[in-house]
Amino acid sequence: MHPLRDLMYPSSIAFWGASNNPMKMGTVQLANILETGFKGDVYPIHPSETTVLGLPAYKSIADVGRPVDLVQLTLPTDVVPGILEECGKAGIKRAIIISGGFKEFAGGGGRELEREIVDIAKRYGIRFLGPNCVGIFNSLISLNSTTIPRPPMGGSIAFASQSGAYTAMINPMLRAQGIKMYQTMSVGNEADIDLADCLEYFKDEPDVKAIGLYVETVRRPREFMKAARATVKSKPIVAIYVGGGEAGSRSSLSHTGALTGPDEVYDGLFRQSGVIRADDIDQMLDFLWALSSQPIPSGGRMAVVSNSGGPGTSLAYHVEKAGMTVPLFSEALNARLKEVTGRLAYVGNPVDLTFEMDLTLFEQLLDIVYSSGEVDGALLYGIFGWDFMTNMEKRFPALKQIQEPWIANYEKFLARLCEQPKSYGKPLFVLSFIPATSPSIAPIIRGGVPVFPSARRAAAAMSAMLRYRQIRDSA
Amino acid sequence: MHPLRDLMYPSSIAFWGASNNPMKMGTVQLANILETGFKGDVYPIHPSETTVLGLPAYKSIADVGRPVDLVQLTLPTDVVPGILEECGKAGIKRAIIISGGFKEFAGGGGRELEREIVDIAKRYGIRFLGPNCVGIFNSLISLNSTTIPRPPMGGSIAFASQSGAYTAMINPMLRAQGIKMYQTMSVGNEADIDLADCLEYFKDEPDVKAIGLYVETVRRPREFMKAARATVKSKPIVAIYVGGGEAGSRSSLSHTGALTGPDEVYDGLFRQSGVIRADDIDQMLDFLWALSSQPIPSGGRMAVVSNSGGPGTSLAYHVEKAGMTVPLFSEALNARLKEVTGRLAYVGNPVDLTFEMDLTLFEQLLDIVYSSGEVDGALLYGIFGWDFMTNMEKRFPALKQIQEPWIANYEKFLARLCEQPKSYGKPLFVLSFIPATSPSIAPIIRGGVPVFPSARRAAAAMSAMLRYRQIRDSA
Repeated sequence: MHPLRDLMYPSSIAFWGASNNPMKMGTVQLANILETGFKGDVYPIHPSETTVLGLPAYKSIADVGRPVDLVQLTLPTDVVPGILEECGKAGIKRAIIISGGFKEFAGGGGRELEREIVDIAKRYGIRFLGPNCVGIFNSLISLNSTTIPRPPMGGSIAFASQSGAYTAMINPMLRAQGIKMYQTMSVGNEADIDLADCLEYFKDEPDVKAIGLYVETVRRPREFMKAARATVKSKPIVAIYVGGGEAGSRSSLSHTGALTGPDEVYDGLFRQSGVIRADDIDQMLDFLWALSSQPIPSGGRMAVVSNSGGPGTSLAYHVEKAGMTVPLFSEALNARLKEVTGRLAYVGNPVDLTFEMDLTLFEQLLDIVYSSGEVDGALLYGIFGWDFMTNMEKRFPALKQIQEPWIANYEKFLARLCEQPKSYGKPLFVLSFIPATSPSIAPIIRGGVPVFPSARRAAAAMSAMLRYRQIRDSA
Repeated sequence: MHPLRDLMYPSSIAFWGASNNPMKMGTVQLANILETGFKGDVYPIHPSETTVLGLPAYKSIADVGRPVDLVQLTLPTDVVPGILEECGKAGIKRAIIISGGFKEFAGGGGRELEREIVDIAKRYGIRFLGPNCVGIFNSLISLNSTTIPRPPMGGSIAFASQSGAYTAMINPMLRAQGIKMYQTMSVGNEADIDLADCLEYFKDEPDVKAIGLYVETVRRPREFMKAARATVKSKPIVAIYVGGGEAGSRSSLSHTGALTGPDEVYDGLFRQSGVIRADDIDQMLDFLWALSSQPIPSGGRMAVVSNSGGPGTSLAYHVEKAGMTVPLFSEALNARLKEVTGRLAYVGNPVDLTFEMDLTLFEQLLDIVYSSGEVDGALLYGIFGWDFMTNMEKRFPALKQIQEPWIANYEKFLARLCEQPKSYGKPLFVLSFIPATSPSIAPIIRGGVPVFPSARRAAAAMSAMLRYRQIRDSA
């Protein structure tokens, strides 16, 4: 059993640093543990309070008197070693140390303190995340030990991060995009558990389909490479690295006490490890969303289907620019497509339906295109829903009667559309400028089809899927 | 007076193609004209209805019997020449021709029809947008003649587009990002008015501060270059071009009947014209937002200020990667910064406050950094507002009392923060993962400071501002 498995699935948690003062970080974290829906036992430890957030509080870990699987320490730096020692004596084996002021605070004796907690942990067989981290999130047991509420639970993306902000502060962005997180962990200074450990763990976590890493340093390159290569045989890994460059490197040292290397070194390390590098957090999320939700294409021949020239042309342009092709369809295929499209439509590839309200055309076109054997995937623009008719609804109350069956059909249509990539084993992406939370778009996202707000982003994500295909094939 | 000036500021509009059938495109467009708040006279022309959307309808333009500044034609292709001729006879001088099926429909006689309407327009001195376009939007007179309701009105960005979708379908995305549009025009096939005309017009439109172009072809390169070079002396131009490549070129031909050229040709044309090229619509909007709202930096020395390591490191990395610097501060400047930061903060540049709730620190730091003369601009991460405290509010009703003055101060703080770049003449960008519509972020956007959802996007936008500096200096 991987040591992270116990840490991510505790049945009971003891918590230091929460009180009844709502302005304390520990209090916020404990409130989030309780609010997110964790079903296990939670024991706040506090020197003077008798209850914390309505739970009975304990003076010390010894007082709890029941088994504790995991402790979280959100404490002033100086008291961490003593408490960790107490935990060791009480038989605790897993810890999350939130407190900062260790290795990253080199001038103030932080390096020595960090060595001290590592020694204590070794002595008692404690495996821990941190210090200087923000906690974990595991959607499977509704556990959120971070400072940020309402993580977008679900999906099949796992994420390990040397940045706490990217672990939790991105929740609002994830919700706005419709991306869900299966598990995340903030590794902080990695005094014990590091990214290589996280990869080993994610590799065997059954429902994880794609893994993201935020990297400022790789502390054990050999182990990282070994864990990555074993993982990418079945699961893609996407990493962002921002330690390269002069200022990034300076910043990183003060952040997690990490020694960084030039971009080229990390490019090489990632390439040899089969890790796909993304430019930034937004691109990493795009790639992970695509990789975790859609079939991996077997080649780079893409169909572009749209009902509007500009977005169709943009998709075609960016697909080619990203190294894939938008092949001219055969005459036979064009003839089949022409049977279902209108007079003004252009079918060659891209397929441009021009302005068209009959959405079932998309479904028919995708069936024909996917089954032709002439493409390996498809990118689609033109799903608008009904939002833009709001001015009309006001003026024509009778529209409601036309709309109701239309909307019912719309949702059914989208559900069928989202099944097409699965049944043909070829990916589908949607380009749309409508927010993911709109009722026009939400059903697509629920159906597991990623929606991108620009042609460039959609094409880059498709290209990342092809890259993973190559990595997996040569692994 | 530029011919587009009359077209964009009509006092009266005659409209063909609207009826009382809410499912017709013309009806939707007329409803949008009425709903968006246009104060001028509107005359629907309809062969059989006596009223259209509650307005008196006219059998023909001759029946209107009052002056008409602009006509919009949303009609079947074949009847367009006849109606245009009638308009000419009635003394109409400006038209928007929405109808498709002209040059872009080469196989079906569209080319000949387009020549016919050009001849008619010349004969009567009519200047027109289209055909095959989606209309215009002018926030100054609340005129929206497109199919899409609720354009985000305001700001100082002008946009001319050879794609209708990018003109109007992006409205929801613009609203979600907090970007406003001053004027947009869909130029369609450009049978008469083209992008070069639009540039000439925008150049003298007083409140336009930045101009966007969606380009599939430049039909009159010499005139385009001349208009662009004259414009960029005072206003930046950002263009996207997607006609390059094989499939993009094919798609473009069927879209607007445009003959495209390789990427390199357009790169050269843009460079010689002083036009900044963006990769896609999202990047174009990022650039325009930055250029239209913030002071142009006089050099590439950037301060990065954050309260979190990961985003700070990412900003530093991407700023350097985009060709700017994050210079080490002088000892004197570091000492001044240390006076206001906490024990765990790192000041060198990037400045990392570590987790910090006292927002006024940002204000003090920016004052010190801007006035030091050591940087030309700043990028900031760490404005979270109060959203993440929602779990606490539920548990601690008394928090409301702490919050109220805090929130009042928060808005005042943000208002002052947004003034700082103006008073120092140095740009400020904010990085945030919280949606623009959240009360935590909306005041920043109202204050005219662009908010980007990734470090890479913020750095790219800053780099575009520097590029414009060079263009303007050498124009």
